[in-house]
Amino acid sequence: MTVPDDDPARSLDRSPPPDFSPPPIPAFDADAADAARERQAELTKPPGSLGRLEDLAVALAGLTGEPRPALANPTVVVAAADHGVVERGVSAYPQAVTRTMLRNFVAGGAAVSAISEVVGADTLVVDAGVEGAPVEVEGPVDEAVDEAADARASEVVDERVGSGTDDIAAGPAMARSEAVAALEAGVRTARTRLAEAGIVALGEMGIGNTTVAAALTSAIAGADPDRVTGPGTGVDEETRAHKVRVVERALARNGLDGSGEPDDGDGPDPVEVLRRVGGYEVGFLAGVALGCAADRTPVVVDGVVSGAAALVADALADDVRPYLLPSHAGSEPGHAVQLDALDLEPLFDHGLRLGEGSGAALALSTYRAACRTHDRMATFAEAGIER
Amino acid sequence: MTVPDDDPARSLDRSPPPDFSPPPIPAFDADAADAARERQAELTKPPGSLGRLEDLAVALAGLTGEPRPALANPTVVVAAADHGVVERGVSAYPQAVTRTMLRNFVAGGAAVSAISEVVGADTLVVDAGVEGAPVEVEGPVDEAVDEAADARASEVVDERVGSGTDDIAAGPAMARSEAVAALEAGVRTARTRLAEAGIVALGEMGIGNTTVAAALTSAIAGADPDRVTGPGTGVDEETRAHKVRVVERALARNGLDGSGEPDDGDGPDPVEVLRRVGGYEVGFLAGVALGCAADRTPVVVDGVVSGAAALVADALADDVRPYLLPSHAGSEPGHAVQLDALDLEPLFDHGLRLGEGSGAALALSTYRAACRTHDRMATFAEAGIER
Repeated sequence: MTVPDDDPARSLDRSPPPDFSPPPIPAFDADAADAARERQAELTKPPGSLGRLEDLAVALAGLTGEPRPALANPTVVVAAADHGVVERGVSAYPQAVTRTMLRNFVAGGAAVSAISEVVGADTLVVDAGVEGAPVEVEGPVDEAVDEAADARASEVVDERVGSGTDDIAAGPAMARSEAVAALEAGVRTARTRLAEAGIVALGEMGIGNTTVAAALTSAIAGADPDRVTGPGTGVDEETRAHKVRVVERALARNGLDGSGEPDDGDGPDPVEVLRRVGGYEVGFLAGVALGCAADRTPVVVDGVVSGAAALVADALADDVRPYLLPSHAGSEPGHAVQLDALDLEPLFDHGLRLGEGSGAALALSTYRAACRTHDRMATFAEAGIER
Repeated sequence: MTVPDDDPARSLDRSPPPDFSPPPIPAFDADAADAARERQAELTKPPGSLGRLEDLAVALAGLTGEPRPALANPTVVVAAADHGVVERGVSAYPQAVTRTMLRNFVAGGAAVSAISEVVGADTLVVDAGVEGAPVEVEGPVDEAVDEAADARASEVVDERVGSGTDDIAAGPAMARSEAVAALEAGVRTARTRLAEAGIVALGEMGIGNTTVAAALTSAIAGADPDRVTGPGTGVDEETRAHKVRVVERALARNGLDGSGEPDDGDGPDPVEVLRRVGGYEVGFLAGVALGCAADRTPVVVDGVVSGAAALVADALADDVRPYLLPSHAGSEPGHAVQLDALDLEPLFDHGLRLGEGSGAALALSTYRAACRTHDRMATFAEAGIER
């Protein structure tokens, strides 16, 4: 366990220090949305008959600034990191699984790999701070997978901020400079490697990260730890109750249980919350969301960890909100709190609780269908139908 | 208007005459499902974490008899026909739109064309009885569509049973021989043109067919016409109320309002119901469902018209039930009654009310994701993860 580098329970700053500034985010383009709405009315279908797909197409037009958004190169970002809090026995899996699964993503053997293939998305696999040495790319898991996995990522991108965080139940997860570095790495990745992606799904991997997500959600959305802490990878009720106590302890130890805070409704500095009870992959994904929004690229939120990153991004920059798109209603209880806080209505509920971006990847087919119908359908005039 | 070829209000036969016999349908393969369940437990994810996708993969294994179902060549069947009841002013569109839209399907300019492309499905466009001469294939609607539409059907398959049905509010829709011919055409198409399809989505087009679907749903599911009659393509409330009266009249005129029937719980002969208040495309799709099930090919139900075809198939052969898979919760009120009667839990609710198979086509991505994760994911042993 690490000695905190300052007193974690000191009163939080109310306004973010200038060490991280979100990039400027363009406003919703009402003209593009209006043009899309007009086009929808001309397409060969009864008005409104594509329901939510029509609304999504119009929204995506306003976000991208394109009256007929292409959503080219849809990409699932899978950011991985490790968490010191696993020492507390909050997960059903050992920490080493994070590293092994990163190799599995590259080999195309993970759930998100298979789903990305089905929906026609690329995957970008990022080591944001796995415990130990940088994750080396190894060969595919087996030959069958090698032949099959068209959408396989070819590398693990090294955006390591550190070698796993410290135990949040004992003190801050990371140094402030690391929280800033994680956010900046995400912004930079969005604006370089993801610059050509028309839509990005936010995925993650990290043993212990649903505990971190619960702490972040409690701190940012003001929800009781018991309400936002679920079974994660599948711990039993006794272990979940222990997990709740770990989250409570993390919040108290880091001055985030509300005891020392004036309640002025603004909430604490999000960089500071990230530093205290966050994770490298969460900070990275929050940065990805901000960087994508700055480039008018919508991002699809997945489960509780991805949702925690969205909460951090949203707390850092109000303007990011419209660019955060829903996917599924995850079965982790904290996810509903996040969706409510972010005003996101899920597209489906399949009881997913895997993470990796699996639900967000699956939702890409809905966003693609919304834009493809919008772009490719004939108008009544083109089809020779009088109305 | 046509004079009915017999007294429509005569008491219905209780047991189907031998003029249509559904093909034998194989039972669910419990061994294949068990093997799939065992495999799910070995894949690199916490048990149960893919939620409903896991259940779908196991179910599809049992249906197809393949422990790792491939769902190769997913295909959307779009069957079109016309309906004499349009004379009664039940639709916002003229009958000629059915014919024009068939050409639009072939040209790739319809919603279902775009969605099929996104989900990687082929389309099979069928003329089951459009009013007038057989629909000729014409060129694409415009060049932009031509270049873009990879999944475009290359032809309209001629499975015409007649040239539009008669007005169901005046008498039977068709001759008994036509009802049988529509069912047989569907079975035959399933077992020939769709023989290589691993999963089939049931789509349709036909101005007036939501009125027919309401009558069929009322007759087969025993629901009040007002409860199953919706705005269809988008008529106003006054026209919808008129549509309810047309459905009531069709049921009464055809002896399907329960007045003359003994209530023994078995329901009337489905071929006879189809003859009296059905449509050619509905009979054809019911036949497709039966023929696909006979070949162990699951079929995905779309909206109210597709759902009416599923009800007919289900009434003809109990064994078809497991092969009928859900897609969306449509916004037409009769759809909920159908899903309830067929015990189908929808995968999503996007407020779709277009038909064409648009919702079923979109759901193919979920079924494909369920089977692709099941087939392609590495096992814990392959990935070198100890549990």
